[in-house]
Amino acid sequence: MTIEWGDCDDAGIVFYPNYFRWFDNAFHHLLRSCGIGQRTLVERFDTIGTPIADAGARFLRPATYGDDIVIHTRVEEWHRKMFRVAHRVLRDDDLIAEGHELRFWGQIDKATGKLRAAEIDAEFKRAITVVDSDG
Amino acid sequence: MTIEWGDCDDAGIVFYPNYFRWFDNAFHHLLRSCGIGQRTLVERFDTIGTPIADAGARFLRPATYGDDIVIHTRVEEWHRKMFRVAHRVLRDDDLIAEGHELRFWGQIDKATGKLRAAEIDAEFKRAITVVDSDG
Amino acid sequence: MTIEWGDCDDAGIVFYPNYFRWFDNAFHHLLRSCGIGQRTLVERFDTIGTPIADAGARFLRPATYGDDIVIHTRVEEWHRKMFRVAHRVLRDDDLIAEGHELRFWGQIDKATGKLRAAEIDAEFKRAITVVDSDG
Amino acid sequence: MTIEWGDCDDAGIVFYPNYFRWFDNAFHHLLRSCGIGQRTLVERFDTIGTPIADAGARFLRPATYGDDIVIHTRVEEWHRKMFRVAHRVLRDDDLIAEGHELRFWGQIDKATGKLRAAEIDAEFKRAITVVDSDG
Repeated sequence: MTIEWGDCDDAGIVFYPNYFRWFDNAFHHLLRSCGIGQRTLVERFDTIGTPIADAGARFLRPATYGDDIVIHTRVEEWHRKMFRVAHRVLRDDDLIAEGHELRFWGQIDKATGKLRAAEIDAEFKRAITVVDSDG
Repeated sequence: MTIEWGDCDDAGIVFYPNYFRWFDNAFHHLLRSCGIGQRTLVERFDTIGTPIADAGARFLRPATYGDDIVIHTRVEEWHRKMFRVAHRVLRDDDLIAEGHELRFWGQIDKATGKLRAAEIDAEFKRAITVVDSDG
Repeated sequence: MTIEWGDCDDAGIVFYPNYFRWFDNAFHHLLRSCGIGQRTLVERFDTIGTPIADAGARFLRPATYGDDIVIHTRVEEWHRKMFRVAHRVLRDDDLIAEGHELRFWGQIDKATGKLRAAEIDAEFKRAITVVDSDG
Repeated sequence: MTIEWGDCDDAGIVFYPNYFRWFDNAFHHLLRSCGIGQRTLVERFDTIGTPIADAGARFLRPATYGDDIVIHTRVEEWHRKMFRVAHRVLRDDDLIAEGHELRFWGQIDKATGKLRAAEIDAEFKRAITVVDSDG
């Protein structure tokens, strides 16, 4: 993808919240490449999706308008109710940023109506893992 | 501030990159409340601003359209070239998210034309610190 | 509201799609000031909301980081299935932009499952009109 | 391009200001395809870029998460100081939105320091026109 004019701030550098937007996009690309887009996810499984419990990023080199970047995304850790997604942003061979999203298996508790973390569906985990090891 | 329709995703929850946009806004509010808006910063000091080296957040409770939130922001650590900004997002008395930005004193190296971290100007540090202890 | 660092592009001027985000926010402020926030709208009336059929804006003066602006919003025309929202963006006494949103009363057609425009609920229209004439 | 999760609102439909962000991106793609990216534009010509005087769009069909869309962009009118960019958004063969941007040749007036519209550089116009007729 190419960094756009509207992604950069007055100093000509990417406005950093955009990286998190791209991380979320990249995770959804991964989902779709596994045949489980967000709509499928919600229809096939007992979940409202995978909300974020924690996210972070380190910015190593500034990126600017017109730069071509590639984001490499994989699930690097599976926990019972959560999984950690790792993102690496490359411009040519340079790592310009890296980040993570800790996502949980979101369900609406029937008693309270509140969002809570539930055990990750095994089929979901299997589908994502296989793509990862092939990727 | 009030969480807007356009801040929320299809699940009715804040699309999380928006928190980082609000963190950046909140830091600039802090700057202005110290009499050093971004324009003043660049004009008065030998800096292009305070780019982000690292940012992160924990999301503790979902927030949705129409919620009124308040963001508390302060510089919690000063290093020689960097400083760490802490943000706490409250809805009434509930902490719904907290995050940080590690910012550096950005200069363009005259020899290489590249962005680098330089020693934080003492006057800038003093101006921000005083507001913090009063705040 | 104050124009934020992240709202501006590399030329230091507001990245213009943000005006439309503010227009949408301003319309939702108007809704809430009439006691009909988006949630209430969907719960009380037979509608999924008021999607946009057409939007536009003229930009008369550049606005930049730190500018304080005010947006005046009102429904200026009522049609059977649509209504036109007018927005005026002022910085002090200067009009810096003005725009409109043509919104329709959105329903999901039971037969086809598709979004369509339906007749605006009279109670909704009355609630908005009254606030307008008082405002 | 694919419509992303973060582009959609709580009703599952694209939050309409995103269309204007894509219009701006599409115009910059057109610039780059003519060998005149924004940096080149500012360096080679006496301009600060092509700010927007007026923008608008009609939304014909709702678009949602995962939809693949294509944006066709061309300059459809040249005036002395302004030009009009037309955008058509297609999903397969369906036109889902169309819009325009009226852009002007931006210069900073040396006397007043203010942004003003100036006569469009002939070389710029020629470069864009040629690509258009080939496109």
